Amino acid sequence: MYTGIIGPGDGASEAECATAYEVGRLLAQAGAVVVTGGLDGVMAAASRGAFEHGGVTVGLLPGSVREAANPYLTVSIPTGLGELRNGLLVRSCDGLIAVGGSWGTASEIALACRTGVPVFSIGGWRFPQDGPVHVDSAEEAVRRLLALKPRRRG
Amino acid sequence: MYTGIIGPGDGASEAECATAYEVGRLLAQAGAVVVTGGLDGVMAAASRGAFEHGGVTVGLLPGSVREAANPYLTVSIPTGLGELRNGLLVRSCDGLIAVGGSWGTASEIALACRTGVPVFSIGGWRFPQDGPVHVDSAEEAVRRLLALKPRRRG
Amino acid sequence: MYTGIIGPGDGASEAECATAYEVGRLLAQAGAVVVTGGLDGVMAAASRGAFEHGGVTVGLLPGSVREAANPYLTVSIPTGLGELRNGLLVRSCDGLIAVGGSWGTASEIALACRTGVPVFSIGGWRFPQDGPVHVDSAEEAVRRLLALKPRRRG
Amino acid sequence: MYTGIIGPGDGASEAECATAYEVGRLLAQAGAVVVTGGLDGVMAAASRGAFEHGGVTVGLLPGSVREAANPYLTVSIPTGLGELRNGLLVRSCDGLIAVGGSWGTASEIALACRTGVPVFSIGGWRFPQDGPVHVDSAEEAVRRLLALKPRRRG
Repeated sequence: MYTGIIGPGDGASEAECATAYEVGRLLAQAGAVVVTGGLDGVMAAASRGAFEHGGVTVGLLPGSVREAANPYLTVSIPTGLGELRNGLLVRSCDGLIAVGGSWGTASEIALACRTGVPVFSIGGWRFPQDGPVHVDSAEEAVRRLLALKPRRRG
Repeated sequence: MYTGIIGPGDGASEAECATAYEVGRLLAQAGAVVVTGGLDGVMAAASRGAFEHGGVTVGLLPGSVREAANPYLTVSIPTGLGELRNGLLVRSCDGLIAVGGSWGTASEIALACRTGVPVFSIGGWRFPQDGPVHVDSAEEAVRRLLALKPRRRG
Repeated sequence: MYTGIIGPGDGASEAECATAYEVGRLLAQAGAVVVTGGLDGVMAAASRGAFEHGGVTVGLLPGSVREAANPYLTVSIPTGLGELRNGLLVRSCDGLIAVGGSWGTASEIALACRTGVPVFSIGGWRFPQDGPVHVDSAEEAVRRLLALKPRRRG
Repeated sequence: MYTGIIGPGDGASEAECATAYEVGRLLAQAGAVVVTGGLDGVMAAASRGAFEHGGVTVGLLPGSVREAANPYLTVSIPTGLGELRNGLLVRSCDGLIAVGGSWGTASEIALACRTGVPVFSIGGWRFPQDGPVHVDSAEEAVRRLLALKPRRRG
C-alpha cells in the first residue's frame, strides 16, 4: 500500500514532527510505502520514522534539484512541477494521513477529497464540508488507513 | 490582467451561475482575460459572460479531449493533466474569483493562498485560516481584483 | 483547428523566422489558432505573422513568469512545467508545423509521432524512421495541414 | 546516482530485452537507482535485471493506475501525465542509457540533450546532430555513465 503523509514543512511544530515520525514508523512496520513531499518538517519526520524502521520512503520534490531532499528517502524524485507536485502525491497514494495543517496541506486534502482518496487527519484543519476523517493519534490513523483496501483507479 | 474564475461544475446552482456570468461580463468589459477550467457550471457561465461581451476566454481542460470544452472559449487547452490542471490555472492567473465552493475549488484556493495569488470569494467556503477575501457581490469582487497590480513571479 | 508551430528559439536563422512568419500568417488567414512555446526565434516570428493578420495566438511558456513571453500573443500561459510544456503543446494541437530543428523541436516531433499528431517539417531534421512529412514551403505545409480533419482523442 | 533506462515497450526485441536486463544488473550491482517508465519491454527487462540483483527500481507510469506496472519495481508512481512523464523521467535522472529506439525513446533522448542530461545509446537511432554517445555494449554504457559525476541542477 502506498501511503502519503502530508503536513507543514518549515513551520511544523515539535509535536507534529513527533507524531509524523510515529506515523512513518508504524506504516513502515506494516510494510507500507511512505510517500511525502520530500522536504523538511512533517515530511522529513515521517520519512525518518519509516526509514529508520526499514521502510521504503519516496520524496516527490517540488523543485528540480535533488539536493533539496531530506536524507531519509529511499527514492527522491525532483519533479520540477512546483506546487503541482501536490497533485502528483495525491494521485500516487492509496490514502493520506495529514499531521497538522497549512495551505499546502489543505490543497492536498482538497485534491484527495475531490478524487476519492481517503484522508485521516491528526490535528488538522476542519473544513466546512465532510471530507477528511479526524482521528486522535498516529496509531488510530495508521490502523484505519491500513484497514482500507488499496484502491483501483482508472 | 489574467483572472481566474473558479467554482463548481455540474453541481453549481442557478444563482452561482448568474453571479459567475456577471463576474465574466465585468472582467471582459475591463479588458481582463478570463481563465477557467473550461467545463460546465460556474466555468461555463463565467466564460459565457465574458465571451458575449467581447472578452478573451481561456479554458484549461483536465482531459485530453477538446470536445469537453464549453462553447464560450476563445482558446481551449486540453491539458490531460487531470486535477493537476487546477494548479496550472492558479499559476497562470494574477488573481482568482471564487463563486461558490467544492473540493476542486478548495484545492485551487489553497494553492493560490500557498503561492501568493489573491483570491476573492463570493459565497464560498470559510477556511480556518485567513486566505481568501470574502466579498458580497460580483461587482465588489471584480473591482477589488482589478485594483491589484498584476503580479510578478519568479 | 489548433496548429502548433515549433522550431528553434534564440538560435533560429533569419530565413527560418521569415518562413515561420509566413506560416503564422497563412494559418491566421485560414482561421486556425496558432500555438507556440511563446518565446523568441521561430516562436515569436510565427506568432507575429498570425497576430498581425488577425489570428488568435497562444504561447505555452516553460517558465512561471508571463514577462518572458513575446509580444504577439492573444493568450500566454506561464506553465512553469519547464521542458514538459513541449508535451503540453503537442497534446493541445491537431497538427504541427516544424520550421528548422533543435533538440527541443525534436522532442516535440517525437512526442507528436508517438501520439499520432501529424507533423509537417520545413527544413527540419531527418529522422531514421518515418514520421514527419517533409515539405518545401510554408504554403505547402499549411495547405496540407489544413486538409487534415481536426483529430479526436480520448 | 539515478540512472534512467529507456527503450521500446511492447515492440522491444529479445536481444534488446537481454541487453536491458544486463544494464539493470550492472547498475544495481554498482548501487545506482534504476528509473524507467515502468511498463513492458526494455522497461521491464531493465527493472528485472536490477531488482533481481538487489537494486532499487523506480517506475514512472504514464497512466494513473498502478496495476499497469511491471512486477520488478521497488516504487511505482502512476503519474497520470501520459507522455509528459517522459520529461519527468529525464528530469529525475543523472544520466540515461537507451536500448534500441522508438518515438517515445527519441522524445526522451531529445529532452535529455536539450537539458544537458548525458545519454549513452546501445543500438539506438542516429540523430542528425551530436547528442547521445553510441556505445557497443551494456558494460560500456554502464561504465561510462557511472564515470560521470551526478549532476547538479538549479
